Amino acid sequence: MSHPTHISVGVVDRVMEITLDRPDRLNAFTPRMTVELVQALDRADADDEVRAVIVTGAGRGFCAGADLGSSGAKPFAYQGAGMQPAPDEEDSINGLRRDGGGRIATRLASLRKPVIAAINGAAIGVGVTMTLPMDVRIASTTAKFGFVFARRGIAPEAVSSWFLPRVVGIAQASEWALTGRVFDADEALRGGLISRVVEPEDLLSSARAIAREIADNTSGVSVAVTRRMLWSQLTQTDIWQTHDLESRLIAQMKTGPDAAEGVEAFLAKRPAVFEAGLEDHVPDFLPDWPVRPDWAH
Amino acid sequence: MSHPTHISVGVVDRVMEITLDRPDRLNAFTPRMTVELVQALDRADADDEVRAVIVTGAGRGFCAGADLGSSGAKPFAYQGAGMQPAPDEEDSINGLRRDGGGRIATRLASLRKPVIAAINGAAIGVGVTMTLPMDVRIASTTAKFGFVFARRGIAPEAVSSWFLPRVVGIAQASEWALTGRVFDADEALRGGLISRVVEPEDLLSSARAIAREIADNTSGVSVAVTRRMLWSQLTQTDIWQTHDLESRLIAQMKTGPDAAEGVEAFLAKRPAVFEAGLEDHVPDFLPDWPVRPDWAH
Amino acid sequence: MSHPTHISVGVVDRVMEITLDRPDRLNAFTPRMTVELVQALDRADADDEVRAVIVTGAGRGFCAGADLGSSGAKPFAYQGAGMQPAPDEEDSINGLRRDGGGRIATRLASLRKPVIAAINGAAIGVGVTMTLPMDVRIASTTAKFGFVFARRGIAPEAVSSWFLPRVVGIAQASEWALTGRVFDADEALRGGLISRVVEPEDLLSSARAIAREIADNTSGVSVAVTRRMLWSQLTQTDIWQTHDLESRLIAQMKTGPDAAEGVEAFLAKRPAVFEAGLEDHVPDFLPDWPVRPDWAH
Repeated sequence: MSHPTHISVGVVDRVMEITLDRPDRLNAFTPRMTVELVQALDRADADDEVRAVIVTGAGRGFCAGADLGSSGAKPFAYQGAGMQPAPDEEDSINGLRRDGGGRIATRLASLRKPVIAAINGAAIGVGVTMTLPMDVRIASTTAKFGFVFARRGIAPEAVSSWFLPRVVGIAQASEWALTGRVFDADEALRGGLISRVVEPEDLLSSARAIAREIADNTSGVSVAVTRRMLWSQLTQTDIWQTHDLESRLIAQMKTGPDAAEGVEAFLAKRPAVFEAGLEDHVPDFLPDWPVRPDWAH
Repeated sequence: MSHPTHISVGVVDRVMEITLDRPDRLNAFTPRMTVELVQALDRADADDEVRAVIVTGAGRGFCAGADLGSSGAKPFAYQGAGMQPAPDEEDSINGLRRDGGGRIATRLASLRKPVIAAINGAAIGVGVTMTLPMDVRIASTTAKFGFVFARRGIAPEAVSSWFLPRVVGIAQASEWALTGRVFDADEALRGGLISRVVEPEDLLSSARAIAREIADNTSGVSVAVTRRMLWSQLTQTDIWQTHDLESRLIAQMKTGPDAAEGVEAFLAKRPAVFEAGLEDHVPDFLPDWPVRPDWAH
Repeated sequence: MSHPTHISVGVVDRVMEITLDRPDRLNAFTPRMTVELVQALDRADADDEVRAVIVTGAGRGFCAGADLGSSGAKPFAYQGAGMQPAPDEEDSINGLRRDGGGRIATRLASLRKPVIAAINGAAIGVGVTMTLPMDVRIASTTAKFGFVFARRGIAPEAVSSWFLPRVVGIAQASEWALTGRVFDADEALRGGLISRVVEPEDLLSSARAIAREIADNTSGVSVAVTRRMLWSQLTQTDIWQTHDLESRLIAQMKTGPDAAEGVEAFLAKRPAVFEAGLEDHVPDFLPDWPVRPDWAH
């Protein structure tokens, strides 16, 4: 991975921290940031030494939305790009250019590592929609949120038409998306968008504590399987398929090294030390999710 | 539209107010009210000068449910109508008479305008289920709610078997629908059925403030697209379809007049004035939802 | 039904109480408990004199999860059972052994009677996942909860990959399942897993009060139909199908004895006495849910 310039990435003690890193622009979203985020997530996914990911913003913003002001004469970054052929396969859906937020959302959706959003300031437009496929969202008291498409004359992006109603419920999704209102962390907490509000100086340590809770206590194989199952079974209309799949997963996984360690540690009342790697121990019949269809190239 | 008698309708400053208007009967639901509500919603949908809709009740009730007492000797309004052929195509599903609440629910589901329920008193049976496909529900402290089918020997109506678990979650839906309990506004708020409780004298002004938030700040085209996307993607099992659709919507809409105005106003830090009409500017590939199947005539 | 030994079952005044009854093991889950629970639910389903079911635990636990310690040398009860052929059809899915929690979950899903979980203590692993397809969950202040699979090196069971995100939302489901954290009743209440926390000495009486609310006021036919509709329409992607089904259910049920009694009692302002039996009065076109597929044998 070439050195990123719109984000920064570090791994400490099996937790990857990704920082959206354009503080002079409130970390406004750019095509380059899309590519760099996807690359960082690819790296997290492939590395057994990464057990959890934190995403936060540098400076006083989290991500102020698509960068509308960076190019002066052409303020709307994507203006004119609509319906143009996409430059390459990764950037293409159905032969056209993909929405950038949606590239991140679909990548997050298939990730095998849990992601914690530590929202330190303004999370507007794609700044908040990109967090919806993450697993835990916490915020500082200084955070602001807005699903502002209707105030910009556009449409929901980052697959948020799909994620937002599932994360906060259709009623709250409708109120936020149809008014386009900017709201604070308390309203976000009441509405179920975030699970905790903390003082700004406690935000990163709170996110790290959740990451540690995962990294220090859980099986990476179990976490990968659980994350995939929770998301994939949201689109499952036949619970017997779920029952079948779970039965086979449990049957196979209980013969693996992490289950042996889990039971042994539990009975010995000591912390478990899970070491199984994803490549060898995630059952190969675990379904992909989401499944990129043939036409999406 | 002929002059309605069971509801009243007015439009002020781009907000339509629909009042269920049988105050001597706590606005109990009638077949005529069904037809009049559908006509009013048709009118709102077709008129670019309507940017939001408020539904409330006249007098001290919102809607006390199906009118069981209006005809003396035949107290149950629909008694005997069961399994009869329906009189006309609009009233018909699969050759049989449609549930009246379901006619309103399906019409609301396809609406391109946001709807705010201002629940001023008793909202019982179809009185509350008809509000589930609305976008925002607020109530006065005097409101009462009840999903009472199980206490009347019948079944959920107004497509509430589908809407209720999605609006409040399956656990809360089950508790309310299986006990048939009548509950107050505080319980409705805790359970996520409404988003705000206010004093009776503040109810209409609160509803109007939300309507103004929409009418004064958002693009009608964006709102129509957003509303359709949020509901329609609830039944979407393939998020790549959502990503494809959003990518095309954004690509097309960002070349439209409302996106240009939205960005310009944002950068100039002035209020946006959105004027694009739905007929010309809602992308024609936006899917219908719900789709009335061939057999439903 | 032979006399159960891992649970106890009683029916008082049309409410069945099932007690997980291995108090010396915190009611840890066993294969025998699976069979006995399914048999008790079968019995509740078939008996018109059972109008609601309560499930609680004997002693200070509710159910501490799969019994890992009962057999000494082979601590993990199912160890080695993975991928083995199942001994009989009921225990089999796709030719393999079914996850035991999933047997209970699928049985609960198809039940025609409402179930109230009265969680009196530790509900860990399958101890909590088995409650997800129940209708109402309340807990005492002494309850503890944990979706601990990731801390044991295994995967979600009891069809909880499907139920958990639908009961508490995907965000809360992810946080609990990916950390594997054990949490208390207050956190369970805030997260929507339970609807009430009471003092230990008030738990059973609170559960019985909810059961009475159902048994004394509702039509058993309506409750059976409502329960089936709420769950089954969660997997319905076409709301016109729901509208069609509801229209036919209402049309038929309104000609039945419970609807007549319901209206009459309502107009006379007296309590209704519902007596219609499920066999004769649940419309035969009410769909099965979940539908066990052919391959699941």
